[in-house]
Amino acid sequence: MKKHIKAIDTRGRKLGGETPLLCTPLVGRTRERVLAEATSVLRQKPDLIEWRVDFFDAIGDTDAVVATARALREVVGKRPVIFTRRAESEGGERIAIGDEAVVELYAAVAATRLVDFVDFEIGNDPGHLRRVRECTRQHEIRLILSYHNVGYTPGHDYLVDRFLEAERLGADVAMVQVMPRNRADVLRLLSATAEADDKTRIPLISISLGPLGSVTRMVGGLFGSWLSFAVGESASAPGQIPIGDLVSVYDILRRARGGEML
Amino acid sequence: MKKHIKAIDTRGRKLGGETPLLCTPLVGRTRERVLAEATSVLRQKPDLIEWRVDFFDAIGDTDAVVATARALREVVGKRPVIFTRRAESEGGERIAIGDEAVVELYAAVAATRLVDFVDFEIGNDPGHLRRVRECTRQHEIRLILSYHNVGYTPGHDYLVDRFLEAERLGADVAMVQVMPRNRADVLRLLSATAEADDKTRIPLISISLGPLGSVTRMVGGLFGSWLSFAVGESASAPGQIPIGDLVSVYDILRRARGGEML
Repeated sequence: MKKHIKAIDTRGRKLGGETPLLCTPLVGRTRERVLAEATSVLRQKPDLIEWRVDFFDAIGDTDAVVATARALREVVGKRPVIFTRRAESEGGERIAIGDEAVVELYAAVAATRLVDFVDFEIGNDPGHLRRVRECTRQHEIRLILSYHNVGYTPGHDYLVDRFLEAERLGADVAMVQVMPRNRADVLRLLSATAEADDKTRIPLISISLGPLGSVTRMVGGLFGSWLSFAVGESASAPGQIPIGDLVSVYDILRRARGGEML
Repeated sequence: MKKHIKAIDTRGRKLGGETPLLCTPLVGRTRERVLAEATSVLRQKPDLIEWRVDFFDAIGDTDAVVATARALREVVGKRPVIFTRRAESEGGERIAIGDEAVVELYAAVAATRLVDFVDFEIGNDPGHLRRVRECTRQHEIRLILSYHNVGYTPGHDYLVDRFLEAERLGADVAMVQVMPRNRADVLRLLSATAEADDKTRIPLISISLGPLGSVTRMVGGLFGSWLSFAVGESASAPGQIPIGDLVSVYDILRRARGGEML
């Protein structure tokens, strides 16, 4: 198995390195809640923090978003931050602003360099996607292009193509999250991830959602997924796994594989 | 996902029930070593014990084998025991007796009812297989028909067929153990197990061997494998996982899946 050739160094943590990284999302509706969540979550030592700005009530107020990003940076220190507006159609929250305004928000946040990654859906308007690509390059922010299907798990080739298309469109990281209906769906997501990992030069992230797919959060690293989302303290939904549990599983996998995780 | 329809009750433990069972092999060369290993291993509370009689120096002495089986039963109490001679060609030890004598040994041990399962390779002589099938039925011992490939992982359909053939030949449990060369082999074994599980009425056991396959010992239960082999105290080879680690993983999986393991 190939190793370590895709690593993106982000504030000293390697995405695509020897071990999958653990990321905890923040879903506070206010600045105070976001910062309180971050403070609480840091005790579990996630590798990265994701700020899900679609949960943020003041998403339409760019100054408030930037000020919160700045305060968040003070709380998290050198920990990398992913800035994500998840579209409602891909499983996110309904927000008060349109797609054009979202792109301008991304540009404003990227310009501050307060975040390390932005996550943008691959299905967005091509012009918007180019604009986000440009502003992330200009400000040396990493771009995660993502595909989500909260209804079902598409076929093997379609899944592989989502990773390849993300790379073709200039992603630094490609992510696929899909809902399984049965255990074959879970294995197909892993198998498509492994194939895409062999065919791409960028780190990939993949998740099979819900309780049925939760096993992919534990073992996805063996099949080419370099990051796992975990909850800081207790799971708020079935399928999410506390960071401490994932750390335990990674330790057991590493021992079972003779000291190597991947 | 279907549940609980395949359960074999063996001394109060259900193979094919709500949780995969954990089995620890004994590989002592003498009666004293076998019994000492059993005593030591029981502290880790495995669900079943497998006695790998191909490691037993006195395998040619039926009385010694039966006497050891009797002493082993006293040590393990009600814990189910699998009696296994693994053929050299399928990864076992070289032994002093021929296949015909092995069949007679199986018959003698089955007649004592000191063991609960015998494991016999599906690739054995058809006449021998019928004889083992008859004596296990007569004495109400369960028959595990097994296929091992210590060189590579065959194709998907071939793997599925090994489970189906075992059922057709009268197995109570079908087992497949194969060596992976890459991560796609590991996923193919899981996928073939899931398909065979949907097509059979008996519990299945499957393992992808070595460090690369060790993850299947942790998550195989989600894909139709009802038993995992684990070492009692420390791993003697990469790929084997201590019982305590598997118990931890099962607990984490159960929580992640909202309280259900399978």
